[in-house]
Amino acid sequence: MEANRVYNFNPGPATLPLSVLKEAQAEFLNFGDSGMSILEISHRAKPYAAVHAQAKADIKELMGLGDDYEVLFCQGGASQQFAMIPLNFASKDHPGSYVLSGSFASKAYKEAELLGVGEIAASSKDRDFKHIPIQEELKINPNAAYVHLCYNNTIYGTEYHYIPETNGVPLFADMSSDMLSRPLDFKKFDFIYAGVQKNLGPAGVVLVVAKKELLAKSPKTLPTMFRYSTFLEKDSLYNTPPAFCIYMVGKVAAWIKAEGGLEEMAKRNKKKAAVVYDAIDNSDGFYKGHADKDSRSFMNVTFRLPSEELEAKFVKEALAQGLSGVKGHRSVGGMRASIYNAMPYEGAEKLAQFMDNFRKENA
Amino acid sequence: MEANRVYNFNPGPATLPLSVLKEAQAEFLNFGDSGMSILEISHRAKPYAAVHAQAKADIKELMGLGDDYEVLFCQGGASQQFAMIPLNFASKDHPGSYVLSGSFASKAYKEAELLGVGEIAASSKDRDFKHIPIQEELKINPNAAYVHLCYNNTIYGTEYHYIPETNGVPLFADMSSDMLSRPLDFKKFDFIYAGVQKNLGPAGVVLVVAKKELLAKSPKTLPTMFRYSTFLEKDSLYNTPPAFCIYMVGKVAAWIKAEGGLEEMAKRNKKKAAVVYDAIDNSDGFYKGHADKDSRSFMNVTFRLPSEELEAKFVKEALAQGLSGVKGHRSVGGMRASIYNAMPYEGAEKLAQFMDNFRKENA
Repeated sequence: MEANRVYNFNPGPATLPLSVLKEAQAEFLNFGDSGMSILEISHRAKPYAAVHAQAKADIKELMGLGDDYEVLFCQGGASQQFAMIPLNFASKDHPGSYVLSGSFASKAYKEAELLGVGEIAASSKDRDFKHIPIQEELKINPNAAYVHLCYNNTIYGTEYHYIPETNGVPLFADMSSDMLSRPLDFKKFDFIYAGVQKNLGPAGVVLVVAKKELLAKSPKTLPTMFRYSTFLEKDSLYNTPPAFCIYMVGKVAAWIKAEGGLEEMAKRNKKKAAVVYDAIDNSDGFYKGHADKDSRSFMNVTFRLPSEELEAKFVKEALAQGLSGVKGHRSVGGMRASIYNAMPYEGAEKLAQFMDNFRKENA
Repeated sequence: MEANRVYNFNPGPATLPLSVLKEAQAEFLNFGDSGMSILEISHRAKPYAAVHAQAKADIKELMGLGDDYEVLFCQGGASQQFAMIPLNFASKDHPGSYVLSGSFASKAYKEAELLGVGEIAASSKDRDFKHIPIQEELKINPNAAYVHLCYNNTIYGTEYHYIPETNGVPLFADMSSDMLSRPLDFKKFDFIYAGVQKNLGPAGVVLVVAKKELLAKSPKTLPTMFRYSTFLEKDSLYNTPPAFCIYMVGKVAAWIKAEGGLEEMAKRNKKKAAVVYDAIDNSDGFYKGHADKDSRSFMNVTFRLPSEELEAKFVKEALAQGLSGVKGHRSVGGMRASIYNAMPYEGAEKLAQFMDNFRKENA
């Protein structure tokens, strides 16, 4: 750990690999001997084109996807995707079908509902989003345009540990908070998207990884920038893309590859999650996890303390020890430790030790 | 000039102030002693909130605007604004009325037309967009929702040198390529927007500076992220904003203030433009400017050479002398020298000298 650097447990924007940040810093004034910063270089210039293409190729390689899939770089966050998806694919006859497993899953549904093309396939709201709906809970409408999941629920700290069977209905997933954190059979998904500011880069770009034949289907009546077909046809260069964000995502994807790919990320993420969940499970009930054990996220660990006073004290004392951003979302309360790919094991271990000590001092 | 640094005449992304780049580089790993990079910091954290608020305040101060205006940080480039503007404000009864002065002005109109709510107030297309339509050419529809201008036409190298009188119809302007380049009576505009990647920062954020009462009017039937009211009510923090881009825009706005504000920018930009236009005007017809003299842009100087062979040679030899990005847009051909705020006078002067020398060698 560098002097002055904290362990950043924020849910997003979130910690990035230090080696990647240092690399970007070193070449910040002169990218690839172009005589200009990556911030200044034309998105039509060859050095940028190479960055753009390599980022796409590395993401597809990490996901094990072939030429039938395309990587798009969009803007407006996952929140804009919540609207673009039903606009592009759903209709009254073929609605989008949503699994409500948390806050962002519900927001995605609301945008489809506003357009009159949304329905609910399942919901865990009645249990305060403590679990991921299981296969048997899903009402799959064979006429649905798609089934939409939020694969990891940042606020509630839950994550899918299975890929739903949709009987041929296209499967869509918001993976904003667990994209590229573990190997999955990504071919089972038709459309995956992720705001990159949690696991993959700075806020400002959304990855869409989807089947080309699907992306080509956008209605021509939609505004140009709201059609996925525009991004597909123009290689996400219809207008100036958020080039610096894409450049950083490319560097993070290259880092994941160099570190050993998604298998290695999953191994590390499980180990980090285990040490923090153990601190909860071995606390004699001092820490209470929000998520059901079988729905626990590897990315966001959510838990409460016996009182709000202790929670405030916990946040303050953690920060004093260089453990930053552990306060939970107001809708759940308590604590949330986000331990994305770039969080070192030492950070999770230090948090777990702090949790043990804090419990002994305050139980 | 730093060793290795070129003069970057690209139209956008474009050159940025070197001092601003150095400042960002120096604090890249530890922003404001937070122990994290500006790329990693939560958009809900105090250090970021201060950046966000200061950027807005500086932009409004530079523009001389008061509390009746708000600064929004949107995404998707000006191209997304082309759709959002008619969606939010126009209708069949109250169409958007467009002045077609170039490529982006026409693209903006096309999005309104696609939605069935666009009309043309004037066009200089029949003259190959060589001039900015004058007041007498404008057919102002008193029922229009707005009159839309593109204030500087990057591709054609033309710029407004007057503010049209619209007789009470709200005045909208895309200032992507001349935002904060000179003082204007900005209060005469109701809605100004600008992709920042030309004059103000890295690609990835669009400034909207508009009257609050207008921004509040978005139809509730629109998707959340397509309503200006969402950005107004949530201070552009409904979802994670492109924080790094906003941080850079803030730094550039602070730089403009420190250098002497818009008056000083205008003085420098006029001086730079004069030296390049003089090289055209004193070339005995070797260089032919595209724009009519009274419509010439201070930001983008467009000109042709006697043959395409000479044009290719010009680009190559300019680059060899550290003058990068002078090739024009394919729709006009020839050369385009973009001399935004951050281009030093020395760059413009070196280009003019090169132009003189090239002419003498090749006339």
